[in-house]
Amino acid sequence: MRTIRQPDHAYVYTLSAVHPPVASVACNESVRIQTIDAFEGRLRSESDLYSEKCPGPPRANPQTGPIYIPGAEPGDTLVVTIEDIEPTEGYAVTALIPEFGGLTGTTQTATLDEPLPESTRLLPIEDGTLRFNESTTIPLQPFLGTLGTAPDLEAISSLVPGYWGGNMDCVETCPGSSVWLPVLNEGALFFVGDAHACQGDGELTGVAAEMSACVTLSFALKKNYCIHWPRIETDDYLMAVGSARPLEDAARIAWKELIGWLVADYHFDALEAYQLLGLVGEMRLGNMVDPNYSMVAKLNKRWLPSVPGTGSA
Amino acid sequence: MRTIRQPDHAYVYTLSAVHPPVASVACNESVRIQTIDAFEGRLRSESDLYSEKCPGPPRANPQTGPIYIPGAEPGDTLVVTIEDIEPTEGYAVTALIPEFGGLTGTTQTATLDEPLPESTRLLPIEDGTLRFNESTTIPLQPFLGTLGTAPDLEAISSLVPGYWGGNMDCVETCPGSSVWLPVLNEGALFFVGDAHACQGDGELTGVAAEMSACVTLSFALKKNYCIHWPRIETDDYLMAVGSARPLEDAARIAWKELIGWLVADYHFDALEAYQLLGLVGEMRLGNMVDPNYSMVAKLNKRWLPSVPGTGSA
Amino acid sequence: MRTIRQPDHAYVYTLSAVHPPVASVACNESVRIQTIDAFEGRLRSESDLYSEKCPGPPRANPQTGPIYIPGAEPGDTLVVTIEDIEPTEGYAVTALIPEFGGLTGTTQTATLDEPLPESTRLLPIEDGTLRFNESTTIPLQPFLGTLGTAPDLEAISSLVPGYWGGNMDCVETCPGSSVWLPVLNEGALFFVGDAHACQGDGELTGVAAEMSACVTLSFALKKNYCIHWPRIETDDYLMAVGSARPLEDAARIAWKELIGWLVADYHFDALEAYQLLGLVGEMRLGNMVDPNYSMVAKLNKRWLPSVPGTGSA
Amino acid sequence: MRTIRQPDHAYVYTLSAVHPPVASVACNESVRIQTIDAFEGRLRSESDLYSEKCPGPPRANPQTGPIYIPGAEPGDTLVVTIEDIEPTEGYAVTALIPEFGGLTGTTQTATLDEPLPESTRLLPIEDGTLRFNESTTIPLQPFLGTLGTAPDLEAISSLVPGYWGGNMDCVETCPGSSVWLPVLNEGALFFVGDAHACQGDGELTGVAAEMSACVTLSFALKKNYCIHWPRIETDDYLMAVGSARPLEDAARIAWKELIGWLVADYHFDALEAYQLLGLVGEMRLGNMVDPNYSMVAKLNKRWLPSVPGTGSA
Repeated sequence: MRTIRQPDHAYVYTLSAVHPPVASVACNESVRIQTIDAFEGRLRSESDLYSEKCPGPPRANPQTGPIYIPGAEPGDTLVVTIEDIEPTEGYAVTALIPEFGGLTGTTQTATLDEPLPESTRLLPIEDGTLRFNESTTIPLQPFLGTLGTAPDLEAISSLVPGYWGGNMDCVETCPGSSVWLPVLNEGALFFVGDAHACQGDGELTGVAAEMSACVTLSFALKKNYCIHWPRIETDDYLMAVGSARPLEDAARIAWKELIGWLVADYHFDALEAYQLLGLVGEMRLGNMVDPNYSMVAKLNKRWLPSVPGTGSA
Repeated sequence: MRTIRQPDHAYVYTLSAVHPPVASVACNESVRIQTIDAFEGRLRSESDLYSEKCPGPPRANPQTGPIYIPGAEPGDTLVVTIEDIEPTEGYAVTALIPEFGGLTGTTQTATLDEPLPESTRLLPIEDGTLRFNESTTIPLQPFLGTLGTAPDLEAISSLVPGYWGGNMDCVETCPGSSVWLPVLNEGALFFVGDAHACQGDGELTGVAAEMSACVTLSFALKKNYCIHWPRIETDDYLMAVGSARPLEDAARIAWKELIGWLVADYHFDALEAYQLLGLVGEMRLGNMVDPNYSMVAKLNKRWLPSVPGTGSA
Repeated sequence: MRTIRQPDHAYVYTLSAVHPPVASVACNESVRIQTIDAFEGRLRSESDLYSEKCPGPPRANPQTGPIYIPGAEPGDTLVVTIEDIEPTEGYAVTALIPEFGGLTGTTQTATLDEPLPESTRLLPIEDGTLRFNESTTIPLQPFLGTLGTAPDLEAISSLVPGYWGGNMDCVETCPGSSVWLPVLNEGALFFVGDAHACQGDGELTGVAAEMSACVTLSFALKKNYCIHWPRIETDDYLMAVGSARPLEDAARIAWKELIGWLVADYHFDALEAYQLLGLVGEMRLGNMVDPNYSMVAKLNKRWLPSVPGTGSA
Repeated sequence: MRTIRQPDHAYVYTLSAVHPPVASVACNESVRIQTIDAFEGRLRSESDLYSEKCPGPPRANPQTGPIYIPGAEPGDTLVVTIEDIEPTEGYAVTALIPEFGGLTGTTQTATLDEPLPESTRLLPIEDGTLRFNESTTIPLQPFLGTLGTAPDLEAISSLVPGYWGGNMDCVETCPGSSVWLPVLNEGALFFVGDAHACQGDGELTGVAAEMSACVTLSFALKKNYCIHWPRIETDDYLMAVGSARPLEDAARIAWKELIGWLVADYHFDALEAYQLLGLVGEMRLGNMVDPNYSMVAKLNKRWLPSVPGTGSA
């Protein structure tokens, strides 16, 4: 299996069609992709503070890509299957960053309060666990904080999640999942980065256990199939991701996209799907710290009709 | 075990100290409490529409109570252990109600759009399941949509969740849980109602599988122990519930209350707890339809320090 | 003209039908009503801090009332004409209160940040001005921060604005304005308090120039005329007030109520009114600090059709 | 005075440094700039519907630019003085667009409701007025819906307002105003478009009276002077514009930027400025329909200290 690395370590900070592709990957070819952590490796000891070592937004959250998918055209859907995520350093890093996080004034929820004290914390990775402190080790549950396609016309900071995917920071984009993304440019132009060793729901402090990783992915195309927002499929679940502020709008988007999926592919009536989700739908918080917040709406596949086309029976 | 019924079926629609207690229950006595469904039994066939049969807010979501807990004083915390919830009719009811629900214009998110069509749906309860349609039956997962104490001075509609508990509509208030509520009046003055046979996260349509139920509860007091927002404890989890709009404020409240719990009882440093929750905290959507939205912040007890007082070790 | 004072200085902290009326005032009788400042006179020097001298919510924002209006029945609208507001002390008071205000973490927008430093500031009133500091004096622009009717069933803290009026903190409820409030109980049960010597849009710090005042009002009834949210009429404007969170919902409510008014009384088509407001409507921020935020939607009467019934011509 | 026109009518849809400059304008040179309406002239009769004639986002809101300002470097502030805005067609156009506007479900506030009916409306411009219907003419109050500098690294849709300016849709960017924008690229790279013949606060329907216009502007630079968000200065006011969701965050940003201005240039203490704004600050709704909502915080210059440096006296 080949490994794709960003040439000259020239990671990109926007999801955009302006960047030349770094590789072309045919459908159904599994590839390894090397990603670097969200701090671009600049925080290497606990005395390395974000405000001193990092250039700050939008020069943050470096991405590997774009990867060109032959045959992908606007109006298609790109299906990214996440096969594996392996840490490539012996540690992950987390931090408290001034004016960033879920329980502090931020550049958007602007206050006159003093920011929380800044700090950096290295979390050793050993034997499939992360050491949080002397008494607490956490099993690795790696996932991709950021993956997406280039949006139409725009070049959007890789810190932002949206209809193109991006920095969704949802734990569901992990090995075993297929992530559906809209194709908005020829070749799809896929970006990936920001692997997390683990993360709580909401990424409460704004920073997960950030790590460099080698990611194994494969791609498929659904030709002439349009989605409005990212979808995720696993053996057990159909999911949709909405990203917006306030958080209830992220939720509304995710539920509506999931209903649209049930109507389009599983022959549900929209209001029947709405009522079914009201009884058995699931939703956990993705992130509540990024420029858009993310929510993941889910339906366990046990609730799908056993005979296709009988969703409203 | 005695059964408490609301005298003369005179259910109440506010959580308030103005109502005379309907019973007194000593700590550690298990009691059965009969609750009526959120529509007060007015929707008995699928031709019974909410707008025609029900008086509308605030005369909605009838509660049994208040129940007086001897010894409870302001500054204490009431711990309500939910032992059992049994349906007492052969059906639950759900509905689409105009200008109410998560994916429609509402009286607060006001639009000029036409409301969705109104409908009522009876869901037969048989053998521990709920029949949704001909091909779909859902296992009962009963919980209490509404439970709370009388707030200080105010009389708040039982449709509203807040610091006193109330209409949180969180699936976590189910058998096996202990719900911690602030005592704000002498005798605590506890109310309960709005049992749900099951509900998806968020109560998306605004209406769960609403049922009348016999609820088995017991009470305990934590004297001179103050909480700011409801907490829930199970064998496996510490949880806190925040209720507010927008949804991110509900989340912030819940996380902060949970951190306060970790600091007060488990000797965590606040910022250490904040970072731990950023890595392993859990949060699912409670409701996104009531006058305040609710979010539940959770920490699995596996992350508590094994030796009390070493949370920040 | 008679003057109504709260008996025994027993000001009330909720808008509710549980309080016995303190006076009955016939329609078209002008009365003076003595109100006390939002701190109930407890902050009398700059060393009197809120957290030390005041009991805190919900024992805050004392109201005079309820005043019974003979003939008022549910389904009517009470029209309150504000004739005059006179300060009755030689000063107003403002303050910074921990976890309260527009640019600081609050009990709802909960953070772990340190609160801003608490302070109290007396603002001398002289010759129709308020002295802010040695170089700045501000002309008095008195208005009523809080006025409303008792809601249906509930007893709501006088800190909260809502469909019943309450703590809207909008500068438009000033002499020269008629405030329309829904009648939800027999006798309307009117409350008033929280006079402000002046206030910026939004009441940014959470505290205006709070003063005790003698308020001259008169009442009228619109029989069998229902409104959903408060309206305000002046010689020049039709206005509606929405109170909710997030702020855009307060705006949506206010615009929709104003459109409803144009449709009901001025024969507008709803979408015509919507488009007219899109071109000439006005909206300023009422408050962004209270439990619900308030926005005021306005239409200058110059845009009303000169011949009634031709709004959509 | 020279007139700048977009070469080949190749208007741009993003604010970005990827576009080659269309002109270079020295500081203090007044220039005329031809802008085209937000629909790029595609709606020319009332039977031209947006969904049929226009390509939809992000190919919307065409801009003239970028204009290169010699000497401008990152870390400077560009001051754009708006001298005149003249309509260049005999009409403006407004419309109702499905899933867009303040009182309807949208792509972000997603609902299952049917959209409002689509329509297009031409508004003749005659003698300085706009004809809304047979009985209503509205005086022109032209302003620029969109003006901004290229952001750092990103290419952002011209539909979006943010720290770089953009689609703020605030009536205050009108003749007589100087708009301060951050310089984030060499040459500043200024864009302008989306002139409005008039607009109500909030741009309630999502569409103002959209017109093509000839705009007279001049530029100045404040070297080594950083701002975080756009500011506006007139003879009478200091203002700052915040753009975010929910609306209260737009407000917080605007107030904080205005306080920062008072501290930096007028020697205010931050908390003194906060309290002064709480008493005399003004804020009206900019837009509540764009991808970010906008609010404008204002301080009348009468409240500035007469002797510089005595703001906290």
